[in-house]
Amino acid sequence: MDKTKKVSSKSTSGKPIRCRAAVARKAGEPLVIEEVIVAPPQTGEVRVKIICTSLCYSDVTFLNLKDPPACFPRILGHEAVGVIESVGEGVSEFVEGDMVIPTFMSECGECTDCKSKKSNLCSKFPFQISPWLHDGTSRFTDLKGETIHHFLFVSSFTEYTVLHVANVTKVDSAIPPNRACLLACGVSTGVGAAWKSANVEAGSTVAIFGLGSIGLAVAEGARLCGAAKIIGVDINPEKFETAKAFGVTDFVDSRSTGDKRVSQIIIEMTDGGADYCFECVGRAFLVEEAFASSRKGWGKTIVLGVDQPGSQLKFTSFDVLHLGKTISGSLFGGLKPKTDIQTLIKRYMDKELELDKFVTHEVGFEDINKAFDLLIGGKSLRCVIWMDK
Amino acid sequence: MDKTKKVSSKSTSGKPIRCRAAVARKAGEPLVIEEVIVAPPQTGEVRVKIICTSLCYSDVTFLNLKDPPACFPRILGHEAVGVIESVGEGVSEFVEGDMVIPTFMSECGECTDCKSKKSNLCSKFPFQISPWLHDGTSRFTDLKGETIHHFLFVSSFTEYTVLHVANVTKVDSAIPPNRACLLACGVSTGVGAAWKSANVEAGSTVAIFGLGSIGLAVAEGARLCGAAKIIGVDINPEKFETAKAFGVTDFVDSRSTGDKRVSQIIIEMTDGGADYCFECVGRAFLVEEAFASSRKGWGKTIVLGVDQPGSQLKFTSFDVLHLGKTISGSLFGGLKPKTDIQTLIKRYMDKELELDKFVTHEVGFEDINKAFDLLIGGKSLRCVIWMDK
Repeated sequence: MDKTKKVSSKSTSGKPIRCRAAVARKAGEPLVIEEVIVAPPQTGEVRVKIICTSLCYSDVTFLNLKDPPACFPRILGHEAVGVIESVGEGVSEFVEGDMVIPTFMSECGECTDCKSKKSNLCSKFPFQISPWLHDGTSRFTDLKGETIHHFLFVSSFTEYTVLHVANVTKVDSAIPPNRACLLACGVSTGVGAAWKSANVEAGSTVAIFGLGSIGLAVAEGARLCGAAKIIGVDINPEKFETAKAFGVTDFVDSRSTGDKRVSQIIIEMTDGGADYCFECVGRAFLVEEAFASSRKGWGKTIVLGVDQPGSQLKFTSFDVLHLGKTISGSLFGGLKPKTDIQTLIKRYMDKELELDKFVTHEVGFEDINKAFDLLIGGKSLRCVIWMDK
Repeated sequence: MDKTKKVSSKSTSGKPIRCRAAVARKAGEPLVIEEVIVAPPQTGEVRVKIICTSLCYSDVTFLNLKDPPACFPRILGHEAVGVIESVGEGVSEFVEGDMVIPTFMSECGECTDCKSKKSNLCSKFPFQISPWLHDGTSRFTDLKGETIHHFLFVSSFTEYTVLHVANVTKVDSAIPPNRACLLACGVSTGVGAAWKSANVEAGSTVAIFGLGSIGLAVAEGARLCGAAKIIGVDINPEKFETAKAFGVTDFVDSRSTGDKRVSQIIIEMTDGGADYCFECVGRAFLVEEAFASSRKGWGKTIVLGVDQPGSQLKFTSFDVLHLGKTISGSLFGGLKPKTDIQTLIKRYMDKELELDKFVTHEVGFEDINKAFDLLIGGKSLRCVIWMDK
């Protein structure tokens, strides 16, 4: 599937491109597909023709958010794959036609964090919910000349977008685009949380709170790491059947635990507590329950869910002190985008990492709002949106 | 210095021993040196003649505590070294005359935790503030026949005590007793926290909240691990001079930070935050400040201090999630008593681990209350109490 042939850089390089984008114009309302102007990339930037993009729950969250960091009009979308259409001044890392994955996580390659093996939190371009590119400006305008805002330095719900090179990872074009796009956020976050943040050991026990896409990606990562028991916790027991395909071996229906707390049940199932617990919902009380479910002596709790701003986690200091447990969080599963995505692609090509099962639906760009309905309705895991269909 | 010659097991083995003990009879009042009866060791137990014991702040805390888990009369003391006087049935690990360190942490050697390299929290004999030995009985009575309670499975403020073998570590008699006793609690906890719990890397930055004995032991451990910058934080600037000898390179007077939080100052001093932060005071707000002082991406915060029962640690879920930091606690610095104390002794004998500087005072048993005064008054780090002086 050679999508690169449609890129005709000679005619567009250095000029604004007029193309279609799905614009979030008002909180909670469907995206509006309209024509926008995408400025040429500036120094250190690239313009990318999006091949396909998938929908992540953060897009839903930011479409529905009324107060800052919400801002409109904005082009959402941050799980995608595309082809370099043109490069700005000083860009030597990419050439026109390169297949790339845009990432909301930056990797400048030069700061202390990027040079360290221990961090994936670039200091030069820190993660933030900014409405701009790193220089505080936008490359998008609508046909009336109004500025349209960026999202997570990516904005993939458009035929063309502009990104800083720190947010672009080159990938082998052998990987199908509707699999590659998944690695830009959700699947990598979950798999990375098990593989990099927790470093799940073979033969260990894992408890996953929340069996949405992120939770299932954690299960997939834990399965790859050789976990012996992977317990899924969810309020919806129907999810267990699906979850089995992702390596989940046991299920706890958190609404049917009788007099027991979920943590008590997990402690019983694991003879003392799970070695690794992952919170994938975004509720402080579940983080505390995950921590309580983790084994004394070495239990690790990894926080992946995003709660409301300002929400607090509370632990008794006795529990933290006396039980030898660890709690930590990670962004993007602790993965460095430019290096670790390559590893995930290799594992996919080697038929170890299974990506196909995450894609439950595919639609054309015109039907992008259908992808929102499917995700909000709990019908889809990942819906791939093809730009040229 | 051969202290073993005074043990005359033939005459006492299997019989109660009448000896002197310093008994805590009432909360907040000086210990009373009186004669007590120490029963022979039961199955799996040993009776130990204490050579010397040092005073740890937990002894002070439990002397002053009015409500449970306080209980009186009780024989406090848990940092000691002694010689096996006799062994109970089924004991093959020790013979009379062995020099041993009693430890409040148990190591049964058989449970999942003891068999795992990752935990030092024995499941068979879990850590607890019990007034008894593991079987729920006492070996101490006063001359009126009243039961005297145990403390932390050790009770070393007595000429003879009884311990379960899981709480006894055999040591080479080449180490001076007034150094060996330090390894039973405070110094090991601090050194272990840096070495085992945090695994401080050479060249890294460390911040220590509280420059008491535990904090200084963390500094000693961090120094041994090759930390490049060790920042001490305390309300008393006079402690800095002493702390230098333990490897502390920089000082923050937490009462003189002007408009800035301590964490801001540490972040400035370390260009982004300390790689490792240790809370050695026991105040929830300091744990939060330590966490705030730790570097994004890889900062580890280790909680050593013990706050009031029920006190809570609060963190914003954003901070935990988005900053890639870790918080954990450990008991006894994550050390397994029977194996890791041997390593510390070897490092002392090899002149790497410096123990001498922790001993600021030595007194005879009759002056044990003076040791309390010195510690409470902030005059001593460790005061060694010799039983035969």
